[in-house]
Amino acid sequence: MRATFMYGAGDVRVETVPDPVLQQPTDAIVRVVRACVCGSDLHPYHSMPASQQGNPMGHELVGVVEETGSAVTNVRRGDFVVAPFAFSDNTCVFCREGFQTACPQGGWYGSPETGGLQAELARIPLADGSLVVVPDVDPATADDGLLASLLSLSDVYLTGHHAAFMGEVGPGTTVTVVGDGAVGLSAVLASRQLGAERIILMGRHTSRTDLGREWGATDVVAERGEDGVARVMDLTDGEGSHVVLEAVGLMPAYEQSYGIVRPGGIISRVGVPQYEKAPVGFGSLFGKNARLAGGPAPVRAYQEAAIGQVLAGEIEPGKVFDAVLPLDDTAEAYRLMDSREALKVALRP
Amino acid sequence: MRATFMYGAGDVRVETVPDPVLQQPTDAIVRVVRACVCGSDLHPYHSMPASQQGNPMGHELVGVVEETGSAVTNVRRGDFVVAPFAFSDNTCVFCREGFQTACPQGGWYGSPETGGLQAELARIPLADGSLVVVPDVDPATADDGLLASLLSLSDVYLTGHHAAFMGEVGPGTTVTVVGDGAVGLSAVLASRQLGAERIILMGRHTSRTDLGREWGATDVVAERGEDGVARVMDLTDGEGSHVVLEAVGLMPAYEQSYGIVRPGGIISRVGVPQYEKAPVGFGSLFGKNARLAGGPAPVRAYQEAAIGQVLAGEIEPGKVFDAVLPLDDTAEAYRLMDSREALKVALRP
Repeated sequence: MRATFMYGAGDVRVETVPDPVLQQPTDAIVRVVRACVCGSDLHPYHSMPASQQGNPMGHELVGVVEETGSAVTNVRRGDFVVAPFAFSDNTCVFCREGFQTACPQGGWYGSPETGGLQAELARIPLADGSLVVVPDVDPATADDGLLASLLSLSDVYLTGHHAAFMGEVGPGTTVTVVGDGAVGLSAVLASRQLGAERIILMGRHTSRTDLGREWGATDVVAERGEDGVARVMDLTDGEGSHVVLEAVGLMPAYEQSYGIVRPGGIISRVGVPQYEKAPVGFGSLFGKNARLAGGPAPVRAYQEAAIGQVLAGEIEPGKVFDAVLPLDDTAEAYRLMDSREALKVALRP
Repeated sequence: MRATFMYGAGDVRVETVPDPVLQQPTDAIVRVVRACVCGSDLHPYHSMPASQQGNPMGHELVGVVEETGSAVTNVRRGDFVVAPFAFSDNTCVFCREGFQTACPQGGWYGSPETGGLQAELARIPLADGSLVVVPDVDPATADDGLLASLLSLSDVYLTGHHAAFMGEVGPGTTVTVVGDGAVGLSAVLASRQLGAERIILMGRHTSRTDLGREWGATDVVAERGEDGVARVMDLTDGEGSHVVLEAVGLMPAYEQSYGIVRPGGIISRVGVPQYEKAPVGFGSLFGKNARLAGGPAPVRAYQEAAIGQVLAGEIEPGKVFDAVLPLDDTAEAYRLMDSREALKVALRP
């Protein structure tokens, strides 16, 4: 099959490799209908040291089950499925509590052992917990918009939803979203779904913030840093934002977040933090009882409800995809996203 | 009147100074019945640079209203009152949201402008918001235990309650309390009141952990650091604690906290952090979706309910006081607490 590997910063290659095979009775093999590139894939695209061995890439897909191990009972050959970006057994105590990304049996795609999902075929470990069937959709005839929206449930939309959910967004809430990437825009849509009264989107790329407005952003703030903080404080009568959804992962976004969060409010982070230490003391979080939440989104917890919303036409989270390329052009997909020529690129094997 | 001043580390003096007077029509003057020394007073007791000018000390009292400004309507001369450790108008939007320590009109005792409460008399700014009447108690005849319990509502017990409240402690919760000081023990009692199923107290002073057990601690862990983390993980079947209440304020306690918090759990801090930066990235909080909460306790928000519980005999939070000294012996009270010969010392003017 064809599959994507990264050999170093900026060096993405699609290569022919052996098809994946069942390794455990709990595995399934899925034929990819759509995969995509994630904003988090751009971190190694910037920083990975050059290597003789390529690292398999990709952790998002919708596809059709080809083969299942003997212990798999929840999915069968021919099922059209979404794969959450992390695999998990979905039965352990942490999974039952809604934190599937902490499943001790689970793990991440994109290592030599697990393989990547930017490929023609994928081995899905713990398939009973890690694949969710999309009922009544034939991927051969479904339109690109529907496929894109279902693909967004593999990670990006439900990562935005997780930010909003952990931020306790609800009716009456003022939400500020830091970052106008695909996750930030998804967080806008999710906040609107959860009933937020006011949604301030901090971003400076008009083509993106326009989608944010379409999805429910009531205000757009292009300023950053201290100017951005001042602008949000001004918009909130000096009170600050009940909830700040941080969808960037860099320190300036974190600093902006504690600058604008209201006393007692919540900063919910889903941008993968590119830092370990950050201010949390009297001058940042503690003094105003601001709370910090967020982490790798347990998208599995939210999947059935979101599939229902997509199939009912209530939401179209796939609008974050503004390009679809053949799998063989994955390197170009990375380039387009890195240069911000594309917001998010889907891949068609 | 006699009042307490700190002139530098270890240098506490009780001096005769002019009586406080009404400065604003919203002020009240209160005659102190009991004041006390706080664990947080020990931070300057360790580190304050020597100074020619003493800093007024103390932020906890119960007392009797002597005089009120012309704009004060909620309390009157003769009322027996508790003063929350921060003053606030209790009418602004943040106060109404339950975060009175963020009141823009409010502030802290213990500066030359506001004065301290380890004194015979105290000026209380914003008296309508900053004093709470205790009904049907005559301080002249009330026993020491009742006075101590009411005094504990000025700060220590309700700071412990705030930790548990922000930690979302409830039925079924496993709580670990880091620190066996007066706030930590109060957090044990508050967690039990909120219905915690299991309460692990991390502390090594048997006389203190014994009170913790009396108040509901189901397990006591004397080990610290990695050994302490391992012990708590062992007690929780390797899962960790839903809630960790950090009542110390030093980095080792913070590190212990993220070591034992369960995926998706909450670390709630009420020990005043003696650090600004701390780990919050993938290796500490983010990776397991652990949340961070807490800050200066808005004890005003919890006062009426707690006064009711104390008067009904449901709780006796004043048991953290193991000594009462005359106000003139305040320096000795600091020494006893600093040397851990006393847990918490009340002062009787």
